[in-house]
Amino acid sequence: MTIGKHPQSLALSYRGAGVDVEAKSRMLEALAPAIAATYSDAVAAGMGAFAGALRLPDGSGFLLATTDGAGTKTLLARQMGRDAVIGGDIVAHCANDLVCQGARPIAFLDYIAMGRLQPQVVEAVVRAIAEACGALGVPLLGGETAEMPDVYAGDAYDVVGTMIGIAPPEGLITGQAITPGDRLIGLASAGLHTNGFSLARRVLEEARGVDLNDEVEILGSTLGDALLAPHRCYAPAVLSLLGSVPVRGVAHITGGGLADNLTRVLPKGRRARIIQRWPRPPIFDWLASTGGIAEAEMLATFNMGIGMVVVVAARDAGRSIEHFGRFEIPAYEIGEIVEGSKGVDLA
Amino acid sequence: MTIGKHPQSLALSYRGAGVDVEAKSRMLEALAPAIAATYSDAVAAGMGAFAGALRLPDGSGFLLATTDGAGTKTLLARQMGRDAVIGGDIVAHCANDLVCQGARPIAFLDYIAMGRLQPQVVEAVVRAIAEACGALGVPLLGGETAEMPDVYAGDAYDVVGTMIGIAPPEGLITGQAITPGDRLIGLASAGLHTNGFSLARRVLEEARGVDLNDEVEILGSTLGDALLAPHRCYAPAVLSLLGSVPVRGVAHITGGGLADNLTRVLPKGRRARIIQRWPRPPIFDWLASTGGIAEAEMLATFNMGIGMVVVVAARDAGRSIEHFGRFEIPAYEIGEIVEGSKGVDLA
Repeated sequence: MTIGKHPQSLALSYRGAGVDVEAKSRMLEALAPAIAATYSDAVAAGMGAFAGALRLPDGSGFLLATTDGAGTKTLLARQMGRDAVIGGDIVAHCANDLVCQGARPIAFLDYIAMGRLQPQVVEAVVRAIAEACGALGVPLLGGETAEMPDVYAGDAYDVVGTMIGIAPPEGLITGQAITPGDRLIGLASAGLHTNGFSLARRVLEEARGVDLNDEVEILGSTLGDALLAPHRCYAPAVLSLLGSVPVRGVAHITGGGLADNLTRVLPKGRRARIIQRWPRPPIFDWLASTGGIAEAEMLATFNMGIGMVVVVAARDAGRSIEHFGRFEIPAYEIGEIVEGSKGVDLA
Repeated sequence: MTIGKHPQSLALSYRGAGVDVEAKSRMLEALAPAIAATYSDAVAAGMGAFAGALRLPDGSGFLLATTDGAGTKTLLARQMGRDAVIGGDIVAHCANDLVCQGARPIAFLDYIAMGRLQPQVVEAVVRAIAEACGALGVPLLGGETAEMPDVYAGDAYDVVGTMIGIAPPEGLITGQAITPGDRLIGLASAGLHTNGFSLARRVLEEARGVDLNDEVEILGSTLGDALLAPHRCYAPAVLSLLGSVPVRGVAHITGGGLADNLTRVLPKGRRARIIQRWPRPPIFDWLASTGGIAEAEMLATFNMGIGMVVVVAARDAGRSIEHFGRFEIPAYEIGEIVEGSKGVDLA
C-alpha cells in the first residue's frame, strides 16, 4: 500500500502535516500531576480514559463526561458547503467515547466558534446536532456560539461537543476484566470519521487537479463523499449488547489509530494481538497511494476501517457479531487477548 | 462618559468590532424549535438559562451543565505572555453560570485548540485550570487539546470549558419566585472578566502609541493588568449564601451586559429597576473615552462593574451584602423588582 502513484520520497506524515502527536503526549505527561491533584476519591476514571467517571455521592452509580472537537474535517465540510455532517459527527464521536466506559448518554452540550458569524453554517451544524441528539434520545441541554474576530482563519470554524452520561453502580467498563483468550470484535467504520483530516487535506494539496466532486473509481463515490462520510455512532448497538453479553472492554478508534486506542483499555500484563484482516474502506488506499504514506503512519493516524473494538469472552464472540449485524454494523473478529506487556501487535 | 479624547464620530461599537449580537439572537431564535424538540419532560431548564438542568431519574435532584468559551481575551493574554489568566477565567465563568441555577459544581472539562501546538501555552492554561478546579474542590474530569492547522489564525487559541453540577430536589433557582419589592444585590466585578474583548481590542487599535505595559494614571495599574484582571468566581460565596437566605434569582453578567442577563432570570410581569450607582472599575471609563463608545453600547457590551446580580427579599438584603463582604466581594444594593413587563430599567 506504500507504493503508489507518487514517489516514495513524498512520504507525507501527520507530523509533517502539522499535527505532532508525540509533542502532545509529552505535554500531557508533564501536566498529569497537576490534573491528578484535582481528583477526589470519587473519580473512578480520569486521564487516559475515553470518558471521565465520577462516583455519584448517593451510591446510585457513576456520572461520566467527555469533551471532544470535530477536528479539521470542518474545513473540508465548509469547502463543500456540507457543514451538517459535522453536527452528526460530533454527537457520534462523544457518544462513542462515553459508551467505552459503559455509560448511557443523558445530555449533550455544543460549542461552535468562528471569526465572523456565519448563520447558515451554525444553523446547519446545530440542526444536525439536534437531529443526532434526538435519534439518541438525548436533550441538547446547552451550548454556545462564539464570534471571535482574529482567532479563526477565514471562514474556518471549530465545533466542540460534551456528552454527559450515567452508568449503574456495577456497570462501569474499565477493561480490568480483560483476560487472555478474549476476542476482539472490530466494528466497521464508514471512513475517516473525524480523525486524520490534517493529513488527508495535505494529501489533497499534493493531488493537484483532483476535484472533491470527481467520481473516483476505486472509491465508488466522489472523493468528497468518501472523505466526509459520517462518523458512525456505535453507542445504541453497544449499550444494547451490554444487556446480554458481559463486555470487558470497549475502545473508540480515534486519533492514534487502533494500537494507541486499544492500549488505553488494556490492563497490565494483557496484550492485544490483531490477527485478522477486515475490509478497508477504499479511501484509505487512495490516501496512502496518493500521499505516499507509509503503512505505519496510516495505522497510527487513521482508523483504517475499524471504528470501535469491543472485547468479549471467546464464547460471546459469535453472538456479539450477530448482535451488531442486527444494528447494520458490520463486525469482525479481528484478534485476541494474550498475556504479555500491555500493548497491541498488528500482524 | 461618551465625551472623550476622540471625536464623537469615532463611535466604536461591538458590531463594528466584528461581533453582531443581534444576528446571533435571530439565529438562535430560528434554531429554538429544533433544540426544544430534543427536550424530554426531564429537562427543567434549557435555552436561555445560564445552565441547562435535567431532573435525575431517581428523584435525587437535578444535573446541571454549562459550556462556554474564554472569548478573544485569549489574544491579549497571548500578546502579553500571560495565558494562565485564561485558565482561571474559564473555570470562574462556568462556575458562575452554574450557580445562577443554584447548582454546586462537581466536575469540569476543558478544551484547548490552536493551529500549531504551543506546549507552553497549553501548560500554562491547563495548570491554571487545574488550580482553579482545585480551589473549588472540583475534579478536572476530562479534556482535549486539539492541534488544528489552517483553522486558527497565527498563534491564536480558543479555550472552552464545561462545568457539571448538581442541585437538590428543591434547590433549583429558576427566578419564578422573584416578587415586587425584592432587592437586587450587585456583586463587584474585577473588570471586563471575559466579555467584550473584541470591542476592547478595537479600542486598543485606535489608541495608537499606548503600550499594554504602560502605567495609566486613572487605572492605577498598567493597561494590560486592568484588561486582563481575572474573572471573579462568585460560586463559593453564592452557594454559601443559599444555606442561610432564600435566593430568588441569580444572573451572571456576561455578554449582553446587565439588562440582557438580568432579564434572563425574571418571570413574566416582573421588571428590574436599577436605581443606585456603584463604583465602576476605571477601565470602563478608559475604554469609553478612548473609543468614543456611547454609554448605551458600553452597557450592552460590558458588565460595567457588576459581575453578578443576586435577587433576594428586601428583609434579606442587608445580611446578603454582609455575607459577600465576608468573602471579600464588594456588594451593593443596586435596585429592586417592580411589577411591569419583563425587562430592566437602567436609571
